[in-house]
Amino acid sequence: MSAPTGDIGLIGLAVMGQNLILNMNDKGFTVVAYNRTTSKVDHFLANEAKGTNVLGAHSIQELCAKLKRPRKIILLVKAGPAVDSFIEQLIPFLEPGDIVIDGGNSHYPDSIRRTEELESKGFLFVGSGVSGGEEGARYGPSLMPGGSPAAWPHIKEIFQATAAQVNGEACCDWVGETGAGHYVKMVHNGIEYGDMQLIAEAYDILKRGLGLPESEIADIFLKWNKGVLDSFLIDITANILKFNDDDGEPMVTKILDAAGQKGTGKWTAIAALDAGMPVTLIGEAVFARCLSSIKSERVRASKVISGPQKEEFKGDKKQFLDDLEQALYASKIISYAQGFMLMRETAKEQNWNLNYAGIARMWRGGCIIKSVFLGDITSAYTKTANLESLLFDDFFNKAVHKAQPGWRRIIAQAVLWGIPTPAFSTALAFFDGYRSEVVPANILQAQRDYFGAHTFKVVPGKENAKLKAGEDIHINWTGRGGNVSASSYSA
Amino acid sequence: MSAPTGDIGLIGLAVMGQNLILNMNDKGFTVVAYNRTTSKVDHFLANEAKGTNVLGAHSIQELCAKLKRPRKIILLVKAGPAVDSFIEQLIPFLEPGDIVIDGGNSHYPDSIRRTEELESKGFLFVGSGVSGGEEGARYGPSLMPGGSPAAWPHIKEIFQATAAQVNGEACCDWVGETGAGHYVKMVHNGIEYGDMQLIAEAYDILKRGLGLPESEIADIFLKWNKGVLDSFLIDITANILKFNDDDGEPMVTKILDAAGQKGTGKWTAIAALDAGMPVTLIGEAVFARCLSSIKSERVRASKVISGPQKEEFKGDKKQFLDDLEQALYASKIISYAQGFMLMRETAKEQNWNLNYAGIARMWRGGCIIKSVFLGDITSAYTKTANLESLLFDDFFNKAVHKAQPGWRRIIAQAVLWGIPTPAFSTALAFFDGYRSEVVPANILQAQRDYFGAHTFKVVPGKENAKLKAGEDIHINWTGRGGNVSASSYSA
Repeated sequence: MSAPTGDIGLIGLAVMGQNLILNMNDKGFTVVAYNRTTSKVDHFLANEAKGTNVLGAHSIQELCAKLKRPRKIILLVKAGPAVDSFIEQLIPFLEPGDIVIDGGNSHYPDSIRRTEELESKGFLFVGSGVSGGEEGARYGPSLMPGGSPAAWPHIKEIFQATAAQVNGEACCDWVGETGAGHYVKMVHNGIEYGDMQLIAEAYDILKRGLGLPESEIADIFLKWNKGVLDSFLIDITANILKFNDDDGEPMVTKILDAAGQKGTGKWTAIAALDAGMPVTLIGEAVFARCLSSIKSERVRASKVISGPQKEEFKGDKKQFLDDLEQALYASKIISYAQGFMLMRETAKEQNWNLNYAGIARMWRGGCIIKSVFLGDITSAYTKTANLESLLFDDFFNKAVHKAQPGWRRIIAQAVLWGIPTPAFSTALAFFDGYRSEVVPANILQAQRDYFGAHTFKVVPGKENAKLKAGEDIHINWTGRGGNVSASSYSA
Repeated sequence: MSAPTGDIGLIGLAVMGQNLILNMNDKGFTVVAYNRTTSKVDHFLANEAKGTNVLGAHSIQELCAKLKRPRKIILLVKAGPAVDSFIEQLIPFLEPGDIVIDGGNSHYPDSIRRTEELESKGFLFVGSGVSGGEEGARYGPSLMPGGSPAAWPHIKEIFQATAAQVNGEACCDWVGETGAGHYVKMVHNGIEYGDMQLIAEAYDILKRGLGLPESEIADIFLKWNKGVLDSFLIDITANILKFNDDDGEPMVTKILDAAGQKGTGKWTAIAALDAGMPVTLIGEAVFARCLSSIKSERVRASKVISGPQKEEFKGDKKQFLDDLEQALYASKIISYAQGFMLMRETAKEQNWNLNYAGIARMWRGGCIIKSVFLGDITSAYTKTANLESLLFDDFFNKAVHKAQPGWRRIIAQAVLWGIPTPAFSTALAFFDGYRSEVVPANILQAQRDYFGAHTFKVVPGKENAKLKAGEDIHINWTGRGGNVSASSYSA
């Protein structure tokens, strides 16, 4: 048998896998393709991969035999047991130092576990976020690899060449240890949920509030795409809104308004709850999908619950559109600020050294959330690596100050019109809470101490003989009940 | 040794345990008290339990020896490993048919597991929500027992006598199998988070918006407590607001505005995400606590981020207060509607037969969320056992219709003032989404199909040769990229 010539192997020939192979082939790498149903390998070689240097393999053994060492094998299979199953099948054919890369949407705790398992056997593991969908995989995705640091020098060239390029910089860098790659990808996806929901709310306000047709809404999005909102999602939304069915009706009006949500957006919301970080916009975006999915219940509810009288818009339309652009922009700033707060908190818990500027740079191109905006975030974190939050950065601080009057007007109007804006509204509520030295949680603490002896702390400057600084204080509010505080709640 | 005389044993002499013992003793039951640190047993008998029929035990063996069969032993210890540890310690001294009751704030999956484990050994298990804090435990809590159905006849008398009574009915009934008791208690606690957050937001609007002093806010709450908002939490909030420190300053102004949240509220939000049910108000309530807890970051943010110019309120104050009452009421209706939607969905998943009227009845008294309102919910579910949601019930449908103009005005005003109302706002956003036959999730579905070939379904009535009813449809929006749809994403 001749010396192996494969630079990298790829398992899983669904849309993402096929496109990633063709992309790596374009960049001059020899890819060996394998799929469990091997007829797919033949079909792929005879069709999409015809005339390329892609090699096929009809067994795991053949795949491994065709790869140069250390072997690099990317799995692009359904997250979950399928990943473990392929790792198990690979192990007998691997040699120490070989690298298994999971490019699926795996949950980061699985990547933490897999890093440990493979390293304990002498192999290396990389859990890499791959973002960008069909288009990204084919022409340059955002790649977010984390796991065994020793793997990075071996995959760096292929990964950075394959990734999207923005201003000559690859949208790929080493993220961090163990599950950091998939964690950052998860947060990326959560942010993507948020961005999409914000766009949907803007569309809803333009359609139901102003009564505009899809073609005109598309033009508004095209205009926004030349300003601070310049991004892939705004761009494709304009394209979508201009896409008519054969009968001339906008295609979106024929698409059922019920969205799935059982994925990484939900994980991000749960991770936020677990970390105790108020990532409210992603939470609302996930819940908005949940509400969309109970379509038949909504249809029945719409028959028995009415809202405000429909009123024609009589205000200044240009001002309103400017306000709406600012509302979307400000809400987006909040969403990213929340996402980076979450990563900061988790990095602390997991002992990861996350490079925030690098993360923003990786997201700047190739992926679904790519935007001019992410260049500004890159600048903010490049200037101040340990930035407390985006709202402390001059650029974003000024942007949000400029945006807030319009942002408030839009939400107030939507509230009076009866058009739901869960994401716009939660972003503003967060903003107003975040900039509040005092929030009414003193009431919660008093209630909790009143009914459950949960204790509270005293406001600095208000201490006295009964209210001692730093202590857990319980007051017998009623003169009845016990004097035992709940902090002693143990047997 | 003489025949045992103990009706029920209780392990764990912190505040809840002590008070529950004294309560059961008042109702004529002989309780045997045990605590790991046994000096607490002696102290309790010599002080709080002096002159009662309470018996002490200084070991698990002694505790079990003093109990009539089948033994009934309530654990009131910290949720988690302590519960399993005590169960393990109990097992050697138990006989078939004995009943272990966990009255702590255990997570329902643990109760599902413990039911199975104890039943496999011939014992019975009950996971019971106990709500009402110090006061409730002492004078009548709300008890929500679930687990081994065979245990119920043996504990029914003690449980129903010990529980709070409303109009001659006990706030305790059998909830359902395995983890149903702790599940319903978890949702109760989530709803409690929501109720508390709504009150805090109302307080904040009155204090920061209208500039009222605590004493006047207390009077407003007292007035509300005579109407549709009549409830324990409104009542104690009025008491709290009237409670001054020795120097005459309202005590709440000295309580640090940083609330804990790592408990059952968080679990409810996660359960909602997992079940795909939009329980947005509890989610926002939990996140509001998270935001409160990063106090020092808020203080720094407050120095660099400003909001709208403070304007004196010049409107009709009476109208504003009526609006605020309606905003609180309507938001509360939404929160309970969401909570019951979550229970309905989970009961379906877990094959529990939940009695929704019974659950509302259990919550009507004894617990933190007790209210007149829960009587109305009891009526709604008594009238229609399989009610789709509270908003379909005549009483609540009319209530929310009456409330909505004021509710909208309050939120619009708070948004313009810069006072955060995350719970009020999310409730309204849910309401407006729920009553929308069409939400803008068609945009999300189009985006997902555009960038990820995730497919969509066609709106009924819009089908044609390309858009077939019920099918997963993918459109090649750009003319580029593959034609493989993401539903084939598997190796």
